[in-house]
Amino acid sequence: MRATTIHAARDIRVEEVADPQIRKPTDAIVKVTAGCICGSDLWPYRGENPIKPGATIGHECIGVVEGVGGEVTAFRPGDFVIVPFCHCDNTCPHCAVGAQSACQNLGMTVSGQAEYARVTQADGSLVATDGVPDDALLPSVLALTDVMPTGWHAAVSAGVKAGDTVVVVGDGAVGLCGVLAASVMGAERIIAMSRHEPRQAVARAFGATHVIAARGDEARAELLELTDGIGVDAALECVGTDAAMTTAIEATRPGGGVGFVGVPHGVKLPVGTLFARNVGLRGGMAPVRRYLPELLELVTSGSIEPGLVFDSTLPLDESPQGYEAMDERRAIKVMLRP
Amino acid sequence: MRATTIHAARDIRVEEVADPQIRKPTDAIVKVTAGCICGSDLWPYRGENPIKPGATIGHECIGVVEGVGGEVTAFRPGDFVIVPFCHCDNTCPHCAVGAQSACQNLGMTVSGQAEYARVTQADGSLVATDGVPDDALLPSVLALTDVMPTGWHAAVSAGVKAGDTVVVVGDGAVGLCGVLAASVMGAERIIAMSRHEPRQAVARAFGATHVIAARGDEARAELLELTDGIGVDAALECVGTDAAMTTAIEATRPGGGVGFVGVPHGVKLPVGTLFARNVGLRGGMAPVRRYLPELLELVTSGSIEPGLVFDSTLPLDESPQGYEAMDERRAIKVMLRP
Repeated sequence: MRATTIHAARDIRVEEVADPQIRKPTDAIVKVTAGCICGSDLWPYRGENPIKPGATIGHECIGVVEGVGGEVTAFRPGDFVIVPFCHCDNTCPHCAVGAQSACQNLGMTVSGQAEYARVTQADGSLVATDGVPDDALLPSVLALTDVMPTGWHAAVSAGVKAGDTVVVVGDGAVGLCGVLAASVMGAERIIAMSRHEPRQAVARAFGATHVIAARGDEARAELLELTDGIGVDAALECVGTDAAMTTAIEATRPGGGVGFVGVPHGVKLPVGTLFARNVGLRGGMAPVRRYLPELLELVTSGSIEPGLVFDSTLPLDESPQGYEAMDERRAIKVMLRP
Repeated sequence: MRATTIHAARDIRVEEVADPQIRKPTDAIVKVTAGCICGSDLWPYRGENPIKPGATIGHECIGVVEGVGGEVTAFRPGDFVIVPFCHCDNTCPHCAVGAQSACQNLGMTVSGQAEYARVTQADGSLVATDGVPDDALLPSVLALTDVMPTGWHAAVSAGVKAGDTVVVVGDGAVGLCGVLAASVMGAERIIAMSRHEPRQAVARAFGATHVIAARGDEARAELLELTDGIGVDAALECVGTDAAMTTAIEATRPGGGVGFVGVPHGVKLPVGTLFARNVGLRGGMAPVRRYLPELLELVTSGSIEPGLVFDSTLPLDESPQGYEAMDERRAIKVMLRP
């Protein structure tokens, strides 16, 4: 099949690789209708994560079940499915308490930017749509494989509730989905931190009531001013850098919560500040499968349109150009069509 | 008045100092009926916190209102009151959301091991008992000034709920009160970590179902075995050292929570582990005033007896011996009677 591969930092290719196979009776193979590039794919792209040269890349896709293993009972070839980036059996003790991203049989999509992807624990992982989504709905359904549940998880982890004042640190697709999540949860004031006009526009479309373009000390001063010196009830850290975490924690009022979903890179947690202000911290990889039914309903009912984070669609063969566009912040998020 | 003072590491004295005075119209002066020594007093005693030579020490006391400032309306001389170790106005925006330990007018008891103590923000801070508690009840009422609400706060911060499996790291008075709190909240299994027979006995009296005497890797192995390799739902970190925090975090199942109330000394938070397992972390100084009415009701109704943490009572003049006994772990907690 044709697949996106990574060979070194900034060396993304589309080439012929072996088709994924059913290796376990709980596997399924999905023919990809649409995949996409994630902000977290930029970590290896920029050489900040280890790279296995020639490995396929991409963990987000939706498509049609092509084949299933002998123990898969809930899905059959022809079903249109959403593939959570992290696969789970949805029955183990961790899944049972809503920690599907720590499933005892955890798996990952590893060829989402390709023609086919293997899904482990298909029965536990996949969620079928009611028929093939039309083209208008496709981006929002694709957003359910990762960025929307991840933004949602940030808001859940931060403890966002109706009436809250919330700040979202990070204007990537996940941060924007965090704005949308906070909005659905009834936050009264949602402050998006972004200095990038197109992202500010999406943030506002998603429910941001305020935008702060400043950074660092200046941003923190603006945040405090906006909240009468009190701080926000909840902060969503959607970047993964130490600067973003610092901003999130310092913006949060005593007793408030920080939800963090940016994969930590060089983050040092200030335990003294957390203690002194009773600021809660919770986050990690999103248990996508846990949130999927609720979020799919919000998408199909037209209540939310997370697909607005896609501002570029490319044929699979132009995957490298997609990485360039996202790296240079010319695109928020790129959809790839095989 | 006679007061306990600290001059240097391991140099505790009882000497004559100036009586505390009403300095602001919101102050009250309390004649101390009983005070006590806190595990956190051992930090300066051991030279691990800065010391102001000659300063009074002690932040826990109960007693009788001796005098009030002109703006105090809820209390009058003669009232028997519980003095939260942290004072608050109980009306500011932080207090309003239950973060009384971050009150905009925060104060502290600074001469709890003495004849008199000054209470700032008396109207917001103090809680009166229904008359003078009899001697049998006195220890439990005294425990409400700090250790019981702090153990309670650890359990609240960890998110303890009915049916949970909980581990409590730390067998000081606060840890033991954490056991009691988890028990009141309906935890099904409560694992106390203690290698000290008298503390194990109190832990069991407070509801501990299991005791682990091992430490480090061996303790973690026992914890995992007790929980079928899954980990606990909630961990209460009641020490403040890096080893205790590590044990608490590593014991917690994915999606579980750590509540920490030990003042952090050299704690380095493992952000990668927290992220990888979606373990929540929340804690800090307990908002004592928030919990006081509920806890006082539990004490006066006989539902809980946190006063069992006191295994030694000394006259105020023997305060230095009390520090020695606690430092050498010959006493769990020492009550001082002026």
